[in-house]
Amino acid sequence: MKNLIIASTSTLHGGEYLEYLLPELEKHFEYCKTILFIPFARPSGISHEEYAFKVASAFAKIGKEIKGIHEVDDYSDAIQKAEGIFTGGGNTFLLVTQLYKKDCMIALAEAVKNGTPYLGTSAGSNICGLTMQTTNDMPIVYPPSFKTLGLIPFNLNPHYLDADMQSKHMGETRETRIAEFHSFNTIPVLGLREGSWLEVKGEKVVLKGGLKARLFRQNQIPVEMDSESDLSFLK
Amino acid sequence: MKNLIIASTSTLHGGEYLEYLLPELEKHFEYCKTILFIPFARPSGISHEEYAFKVASAFAKIGKEIKGIHEVDDYSDAIQKAEGIFTGGGNTFLLVTQLYKKDCMIALAEAVKNGTPYLGTSAGSNICGLTMQTTNDMPIVYPPSFKTLGLIPFNLNPHYLDADMQSKHMGETRETRIAEFHSFNTIPVLGLREGSWLEVKGEKVVLKGGLKARLFRQNQIPVEMDSESDLSFLK
Repeated sequence: MKNLIIASTSTLHGGEYLEYLLPELEKHFEYCKTILFIPFARPSGISHEEYAFKVASAFAKIGKEIKGIHEVDDYSDAIQKAEGIFTGGGNTFLLVTQLYKKDCMIALAEAVKNGTPYLGTSAGSNICGLTMQTTNDMPIVYPPSFKTLGLIPFNLNPHYLDADMQSKHMGETRETRIAEFHSFNTIPVLGLREGSWLEVKGEKVVLKGGLKARLFRQNQIPVEMDSESDLSFLK
Repeated sequence: MKNLIIASTSTLHGGEYLEYLLPELEKHFEYCKTILFIPFARPSGISHEEYAFKVASAFAKIGKEIKGIHEVDDYSDAIQKAEGIFTGGGNTFLLVTQLYKKDCMIALAEAVKNGTPYLGTSAGSNICGLTMQTTNDMPIVYPPSFKTLGLIPFNLNPHYLDADMQSKHMGETRETRIAEFHSFNTIPVLGLREGSWLEVKGEKVVLKGGLKARLFRQNQIPVEMDSESDLSFLK
């Protein structure tokens, strides 16, 4: 049975890395001694080692060890045998490119479908959707495909940001960008604000974290979904 | 001799479409009766026809006619024969995908290198660089390549936005995104604020419009370039 936490962000303003999620993660990874960490998204371009160190420091607070996938020889084997998996945020183009190049995409989808507890934040959440086409990231590398894990039957827009009505900046709002996506794609998109996460148990998807999320569907007016909403109807 | 205006944005806050650029455009397109308009980027998903109508209304103010490339049968021929060319903003992934699919990329680069006056705004400016990898746009379609026209020997980040130090949002700043690009790429990137444009005459590139631009180079601290700076040294 699928068992995922798919979070908008790793860090809330003024908080420490993963701090707001630790009580959830203690339950989520209850039966895991060691968690396999996928650092490929490299936020701000930091190295795999630096990133794994940061993640290990956070997970140490709930008594969990971190094993970076960059340390192993056989990625697929490590994914198959993992007790739990965490894919951190950073750049989604880089993450997806690396997952394809290192032949991890299928192994990762299969492990999570078979019940390995999974945590994603930001880019690590983006890849849980059908495609990475609603990422906010810059296309710093060219991935072989935009298709992702398809662990949920829709797409995410993490770090969802409401339009700032005071702004004099003329760049597109997030809502405009998602409307452009829907000019060419039918996949629903959930705008997940910072502090929100999805809890996936089997085919049940529930919005968690106290905030509303904004749901965009092709040819429909966007709607606000309350925290604790069951989103299993989406497809 | 190349002759380009490469603008950060089509529209300033509170202004009308292309309004702030019209005095420049009157000179730039002095010898053109009709300008070929490339509407492929489709901002907010509007149709080619709607977009061309909007552009024609703006250019009518300086006595220029607009011919939408979507109205012609032979794109390459239309580009070769154009007196002047304008590529409008919208979604860069969509624009680049269409330019490749319709076999326009080479014809467009050749026409502009041969001296056809060119105007780009936003996505239409992004494609003047070496690659589209420093766009702010959402990857709503999958282009066959990120390579673009290479009319200038560096990349652009249009609608460049300085970090908002008051923001509680944890998404990456523009500067962080460009730093991530430079973890994997050596191409210089010019952050072009709204109201700035580049004037390209032959191989000479000058920053115009009264604002500073922010220059990012791999392994170097970003620097502010004054308006009227000669940027021809960049490569």
